Amino acid sequence: MVNFLSIFTMRNLFFLSLALNLSLIMRVFYEGEKHGPHGLSARKADSGLEKAAHATQRTLVSLSSSGQDDGEKLINLDHGDPTMYESYWQQMGEKTTVVIPGWQSMSYFSDVKNPCWFLEPEFAKQVVRLHNLVGNAVTEGRQIVVGTGSSQLFLAALYALAPKDASEPISVISAAPFYSSYPSMTDYLKSGLYKWAGDARSFDKEGPYIELVTSPNNPDGFVRHSMVNRTGGILVHDLAYYWPQYTPISSATDHDLTLFTVSKSTGHAGTRIGWALVKDPEVAKKMIKFIELSTIGVSRDSQLRAARILEVIINSSQNPGRPESGESFFKISHHLMAERWQLLREAVNRGRFFSLPEFQQGFCQFLNQVSQPQPGKQKFTEPLIKSCHLYNYLCNA
Amino acid sequence: MVNFLSIFTMRNLFFLSLALNLSLIMRVFYEGEKHGPHGLSARKADSGLEKAAHATQRTLVSLSSSGQDDGEKLINLDHGDPTMYESYWQQMGEKTTVVIPGWQSMSYFSDVKNPCWFLEPEFAKQVVRLHNLVGNAVTEGRQIVVGTGSSQLFLAALYALAPKDASEPISVISAAPFYSSYPSMTDYLKSGLYKWAGDARSFDKEGPYIELVTSPNNPDGFVRHSMVNRTGGILVHDLAYYWPQYTPISSATDHDLTLFTVSKSTGHAGTRIGWALVKDPEVAKKMIKFIELSTIGVSRDSQLRAARILEVIINSSQNPGRPESGESFFKISHHLMAERWQLLREAVNRGRFFSLPEFQQGFCQFLNQVSQPQPGKQKFTEPLIKSCHLYNYLCNA
Repeated sequence: MVNFLSIFTMRNLFFLSLALNLSLIMRVFYEGEKHGPHGLSARKADSGLEKAAHATQRTLVSLSSSGQDDGEKLINLDHGDPTMYESYWQQMGEKTTVVIPGWQSMSYFSDVKNPCWFLEPEFAKQVVRLHNLVGNAVTEGRQIVVGTGSSQLFLAALYALAPKDASEPISVISAAPFYSSYPSMTDYLKSGLYKWAGDARSFDKEGPYIELVTSPNNPDGFVRHSMVNRTGGILVHDLAYYWPQYTPISSATDHDLTLFTVSKSTGHAGTRIGWALVKDPEVAKKMIKFIELSTIGVSRDSQLRAARILEVIINSSQNPGRPESGESFFKISHHLMAERWQLLREAVNRGRFFSLPEFQQGFCQFLNQVSQPQPGKQKFTEPLIKSCHLYNYLCNA
Repeated sequence: MVNFLSIFTMRNLFFLSLALNLSLIMRVFYEGEKHGPHGLSARKADSGLEKAAHATQRTLVSLSSSGQDDGEKLINLDHGDPTMYESYWQQMGEKTTVVIPGWQSMSYFSDVKNPCWFLEPEFAKQVVRLHNLVGNAVTEGRQIVVGTGSSQLFLAALYALAPKDASEPISVISAAPFYSSYPSMTDYLKSGLYKWAGDARSFDKEGPYIELVTSPNNPDGFVRHSMVNRTGGILVHDLAYYWPQYTPISSATDHDLTLFTVSKSTGHAGTRIGWALVKDPEVAKKMIKFIELSTIGVSRDSQLRAARILEVIINSSQNPGRPESGESFFKISHHLMAERWQLLREAVNRGRFFSLPEFQQGFCQFLNQVSQPQPGKQKFTEPLIKSCHLYNYLCNA
């Protein structure tokens, strides 16, 4: 009982200290913004950036929560909600707008000649153009599979890669720290096909397995490669954050199965569109089957909208600054993230309890310059009790 | 070997006979249309119906296939694709159009104060208005849960209703003939929570079970009620076809968990929007959790589009014929279905091998008249070999 009380008091003190720490960080953070010594507002910003900078003014250090802070309800999904791009899209004006008459896209079918019959050809076209432009993934010889966000494609990949007649479910692993939803997404239906088996670093079971490689990693932003390299291993690469605003684009990835999503690349989380690049046509076929069985395809409206958004991004990168194409999305978003990281580092450095990792800079083939990783989501590590992290969604508005 | 050959020959003959039969039906069907003795084209049709009638001109008796008949690929999903409504939406013009600027609906969250945080308030509002207008379902005291089509909501319902700590998966049953995708949708992930257990009529296992009641039934169009009435039974009502164009609306249903979808009610299958009316908030909460884990919500673009479509339908029913509201969607679609059924019955009656069921007429509270059931999908029964059915999607264009 005495022991219990002493632990309890320790905890109390610890949380009190955390709260104080956090309030200090926020104070420093906001004061830094108000006086604007290093922020964009103190520099001569070009007209495009001026508006975009308003997003930064609303930056919040969020405690793993994404709800509106109206005191009524906080929803914690542990997902970044990159609404900071809103101001960019506002300034891009009508060229970003989709108009969908009531009689369009009524059928289930987008393209009956494509194995992925629910894939809008225009969306597929813009995905290929975007990857070719950014240079972050090889698209030749791949089946594009569209999904209701990359979450659905993650599940589709598990279904497609798991042996159908095995005596036990295939192990699904990822090196810690991993995306917090992986375990529950893998296990919520108690599937007989696949089962969460934890940290890839300590995985020592014989036989086949699926390893999830998230790079840059969610939640710590580091570039990741496969941790286990054994016979029977199948890799799924989640590259949601492999875009120039978050990390240097070092090369075009050439994996068997790669996942992307508009929520992180363009900020359109509410549109629920992701895509997979799949090398093996048989795997792609099974993923398509999964999406047929779970949602009979993917919203055509959202694909049309995503296609327009990607097209605007491509035009803005190819002809930046022209009235018809607007300012480069990736340059502006890279700038915004850089600014937010600078403010965050300054704030954390003035505090005592939290620390931020140092990332290795690298040459970004797309920006054609040496560039710092600046993850869209970042955990704060508390150095005394290492299991305590506070997450900050750097791209939330 | 001799036996095998004789069976093979029988089969050959049988399929030859089927093909001949079908070609005869189609010939009669199309001749009936060409000469227009009973079709809408022979009558004085009002301006609204004239355009809509073109859909009928393109009617195909489809062999369980929904692909374009270009000789390249046929896709069989066994789903009706009610594109016959396209011409109605065309004539309704711009009032059906949604315009979505690039900066709208970017966040994951539609309504943080609603337990279903990904439900667009405008869509929820129009769902309630539509049910109140049509009188086909009670909405008071229900949580509306939006889904990526009603397929996702069906799976969400299984997840929500299955006990989480049972020693074996709960049985999922439906009275034959049932929707052909139910077994594969239930079993494709080999879930430990639920398992397909076949025809409700022959179900005699002790313990809890989930019974799927589809009414009007897919594929035979009959009104259905629960077949098994035992302790531990949980009902899921799939009322995708409980709309005035398909069946008389006899009363407002008042079930625990009811599924609807825009694909069958308005024809917007490509939009992938369904909704559930759920009485028990705890069940609703688990369904919401399922959708979080499988797709992190539902496309906001599609919900906004569906809301507009429902609103147009409501206005067209409340003020039919006025320029600002257009002609009544349900009256026109009811008329189209009636015409198609008349032609179909005539064609089938002139053939020898196929038959169609007779349905009991009933009073439709919405249309305020006695009305015939006219299912959107109908199987043809071959009387000699009863296991052979050809499906006709009466609402495909």
